[in-house]
Amino acid sequence: MAYYVGIDLGGTNIKAGVCDSEGNLLNKLSIKTHAERTEEEIIHDMGKLALDVIKDLGKEVADIEAIGIGSPGTPDNDEGLLVYSSNLPFNNSPMRKLIREVIDLPVYIDNDANCAAMAEAVAGAAKGSKDSVTITLGTGVGAGVIANGRIYSGFNQAGSEFGHTVLVSGGVQCGCGRRGCFEQYASATALGRMTVEEAEAHPESILKDVLEEQGGTNAKVAFIAMKRGDKVAADLVDRYTDYLADGLANAINAFMPEVLVVGGGVCNEGDPLLIPMREKTMSRPYFGPGVKRTTIKLAEMGNDAGIVGAAMMGRYCLEDGKNGK
Amino acid sequence: MAYYVGIDLGGTNIKAGVCDSEGNLLNKLSIKTHAERTEEEIIHDMGKLALDVIKDLGKEVADIEAIGIGSPGTPDNDEGLLVYSSNLPFNNSPMRKLIREVIDLPVYIDNDANCAAMAEAVAGAAKGSKDSVTITLGTGVGAGVIANGRIYSGFNQAGSEFGHTVLVSGGVQCGCGRRGCFEQYASATALGRMTVEEAEAHPESILKDVLEEQGGTNAKVAFIAMKRGDKVAADLVDRYTDYLADGLANAINAFMPEVLVVGGGVCNEGDPLLIPMREKTMSRPYFGPGVKRTTIKLAEMGNDAGIVGAAMMGRYCLEDGKNGK
Repeated sequence: MAYYVGIDLGGTNIKAGVCDSEGNLLNKLSIKTHAERTEEEIIHDMGKLALDVIKDLGKEVADIEAIGIGSPGTPDNDEGLLVYSSNLPFNNSPMRKLIREVIDLPVYIDNDANCAAMAEAVAGAAKGSKDSVTITLGTGVGAGVIANGRIYSGFNQAGSEFGHTVLVSGGVQCGCGRRGCFEQYASATALGRMTVEEAEAHPESILKDVLEEQGGTNAKVAFIAMKRGDKVAADLVDRYTDYLADGLANAINAFMPEVLVVGGGVCNEGDPLLIPMREKTMSRPYFGPGVKRTTIKLAEMGNDAGIVGAAMMGRYCLEDGKNGK
Repeated sequence: MAYYVGIDLGGTNIKAGVCDSEGNLLNKLSIKTHAERTEEEIIHDMGKLALDVIKDLGKEVADIEAIGIGSPGTPDNDEGLLVYSSNLPFNNSPMRKLIREVIDLPVYIDNDANCAAMAEAVAGAAKGSKDSVTITLGTGVGAGVIANGRIYSGFNQAGSEFGHTVLVSGGVQCGCGRRGCFEQYASATALGRMTVEEAEAHPESILKDVLEEQGGTNAKVAFIAMKRGDKVAADLVDRYTDYLADGLANAINAFMPEVLVVGGGVCNEGDPLLIPMREKTMSRPYFGPGVKRTTIKLAEMGNDAGIVGAAMMGRYCLEDGKNGK
C-alpha cells in the first residue's frame, strides 16, 4: 500500500495527516500557524509536522510517496513556490525547497479550495465521477473544479475563482474590487449581511428578535426566525436561495460537472435550505433534451477535506510525472 | 503529411474542408443544409461533401486520417450520436454510422462553439497557448473552452454554456428559461435590443435617427450614432461594454485561460468597442499579486473557424485513441 502526507495550511492552524492511495485518512495532527512568523519558520514547522504525523502512524519517511500541500492563495507547483496568499506572509515563497530541507520527499502545492474539491472527488460526495465542482459557502464562496479526475487550475494555477463571478451586475461591492460577485450573495457572510438589512427594514419582525437574541448576525438567524413563523425571514431565505441557485446553475452551465458538491456551514441548516436550493438550481441549467444532467450533493469530507485533498493531489501529481523535487 | 476533413454543420449551409495537421485549411466546399429534410438525407450529404472536398484537393480517402464534425447542439462523441440540436432535425441521430455508410474513416463529433475555440487554439489568436477560452458575440453568446490543448466538454459533452450564466440576477428573460443571462446583455442581438430601448426613451437623439436610417436595429447603430457625437449612443456603448466586460471577466475568473479570444460581428466595430472592452475587462479579474494575467485577443479564424476546428478536433480525438468507428 502506498501512503501520502497531506498538509492543510490555514491562517490559524496547520493540519497534517497520512492517507492511503484511496484517500482514507489514517491519522492526523495539528499545530498553530502563528502567521506572524517568517515564511521560513512556518514552512519548516510544516515539514516537522509531516515527520511527526508519519512517526505517529508508526511509519517511516521511506514508506511515504509524496507530500501534498493545500494553501490559501496561488501556488506555482512547477517551481514549488507559493506565489501569493492573502492571509499569510508568503510572496513567491520557496515552499518545496524549505519543506525538503526538513523531509526528503516529493512536494506538491495547490490551492486549498482545489484540494477540497479533490477530496470530495476521490473519497467524498463526488466519488466515482471524473468531473465535479465543489462550492463551499463559508466566509466567502470557494470553488474547486475537477476535470477528468484532475484539478482544473487554469494556465496560471490560480484555479477557478468562481466565487468572484458577477451575478448581480453593479451590485454589492466585493473585496476583490468588482461589484455583485456571487460571493456577496451566497456566502454565510452575505446571508448574515442580508439578515441585518432585513431586520432593520422590519423592526417588528421575529427576525429582529432573533438577531438580538443571537447577539449579532450569522447565517443561522434567518432560519431560526423562519422556523418561528416569521414571513420576513421566509422571504429572506427565499431570496437567498434564489441567488444561491442562480450561482450554482451558473457553475453547472460553465463546467457541466457530473456532480456539483455544495458544502460549508450554511448546509447544516438542512432541508429548509437544501430543498429550495436543489429545486431552484435544477430548474435553471441549460441542458438540451436527452442531455445528461448534473447531480447536486452535499459535501461529505468536512474538516478533513483539506488534508485528504492535499494528499490525493500529491498522489496524482506524482503519478502524472510532475516534478516534486 | 497527415490530412483531416472538417465539416461545419449549420442551419443554412454545410461547409467542409481539408486541413493539414497544423490546421492550415487547404480547400473548402459548401452546400445548402435544407434543414427540412430527414436526418438521414442531411447526414448522407455531409458524407458526400467530405468525399467531394477530398477529391477536389486531388487526394483520396486513404490520404485522410479522420473526419471531424462541428454541429450546433450536444454530441455524444463516444457513441457517435448527435443527441440534440436546437435548429436541426436531430434527436439521438447516429451521425457517425450514417457518415460511415458513405465514407470509411473515423468520425468525431463536437459542438460548433467548441470547434471554433479549437481552431483559435491551434491556428488562430490563441495559437501557442494550452488554455484558452473563445467567446463569440453573435445572435447569441457562444463559448468554447480549451484546457491543456483539448476541448473542455464537461461530463455530458454539452460543453461550457457560458453564454447562459446569469450576469444580471432577475434581469432580461432568456430563451433558455433563465433571467439575466450574459447572452442577453452582450450578444449583437442584445445590443440591438438595447438600442431600440434607448432610441425610444430618447426620441430627440441621433441614435433614433440612425435607427430609422438603418431601417431597423442592429449592433452597428449605436456605434454610428456615437461617431456622430450622440451622447445617448455613447452612454449606451459605455453600458454595453460594462456588461460585456463583466461577463468576460467572469469567464477569466472561472477558467483562468492564458488567452481569452473574443470574436463575432460586433468586433468589427474596432477601437470604439475594443478599447473600452479590454480596459474594463482587465481591470476586473481576480489575480493575486505576482499571478500571471490573461491576455485578451481578437478572433482570427473568421468563417473558417468551424471547418478548421472540427478537423483539428478530429485529429486530437484520433491521437488520444478515442473510438471513431
